[in-house]
Amino acid sequence: MMPKVTLHHIALMVADLDAAIAFYRDALGIALEGAHDVDAEGVRVAFLPLHGDYANRPPAIELVQPTRLDTGVAKWMATHGQGMHHICVQVDDIDAAMKRASEHGATFTSAEPGRKSDGTRYVFIHPKTAFGALIELVQT
Amino acid sequence: MMPKVTLHHIALMVADLDAAIAFYRDALGIALEGAHDVDAEGVRVAFLPLHGDYANRPPAIELVQPTRLDTGVAKWMATHGQGMHHICVQVDDIDAAMKRASEHGATFTSAEPGRKSDGTRYVFIHPKTAFGALIELVQT
Repeated sequence: MMPKVTLHHIALMVADLDAAIAFYRDALGIALEGAHDVDAEGVRVAFLPLHGDYANRPPAIELVQPTRLDTGVAKWMATHGQGMHHICVQVDDIDAAMKRASEHGATFTSAEPGRKSDGTRYVFIHPKTAFGALIELVQT
Repeated sequence: MMPKVTLHHIALMVADLDAAIAFYRDALGIALEGAHDVDAEGVRVAFLPLHGDYANRPPAIELVQPTRLDTGVAKWMATHGQGMHHICVQVDDIDAAMKRASEHGATFTSAEPGRKSDGTRYVFIHPKTAFGALIELVQT
């Protein structure tokens, strides 16, 4: 049986969050859900949910602006510039998802899922094992 | 009033479509809808719809393998390697969406929408005007 894999968000790295919010909201017409600082990660983020299935969480565009220079995302943007950074998919059981993925060659940026301040468990699949794309798994 | 902007797909460039399909299907558990050649564009593509709102079209991961060397996507991959290429959002009225976006600074890779073989109208926003991300608009 196929597990339930839902798109949670697509993360875009931006240099100026307010300007990027204005573009995605005003130029594309995607409503802003909200923006906030995540001090522990050295970023300020905004979520813009796309129209979709509001019975579940609709997929969102997440805009991410680094607020410190010493983070992984700040270094990534210094190398790659602004643009698409990762795709986040939501799974029912992150431990089962990691086991399945590792049996098919995936490696992860940490051996165990981390935990966000709201309790969400998350892990990233290494892009070298996912055909160049950085994929985040979350279990909310 | 906000227009209806739905996520249609996220396109990932890959060098070996069959291997990438196997990974996204078997490692991540995303069902394969199908794969086919698009001779006019010099690519072979696969769609893997994520779990979502089946009353509407759920968002999909599109895997794209260039099949010729003389196309824009083949040249892009030669420079950037495999990975995330673009985000495609579906709009109700592509002419209105282009007008709105251009009023907010967007420029497009062509002045008028193109038309795919199935009749879908599409256009790309230039990434320089969308904070580094390549955004495709489609009206199906």
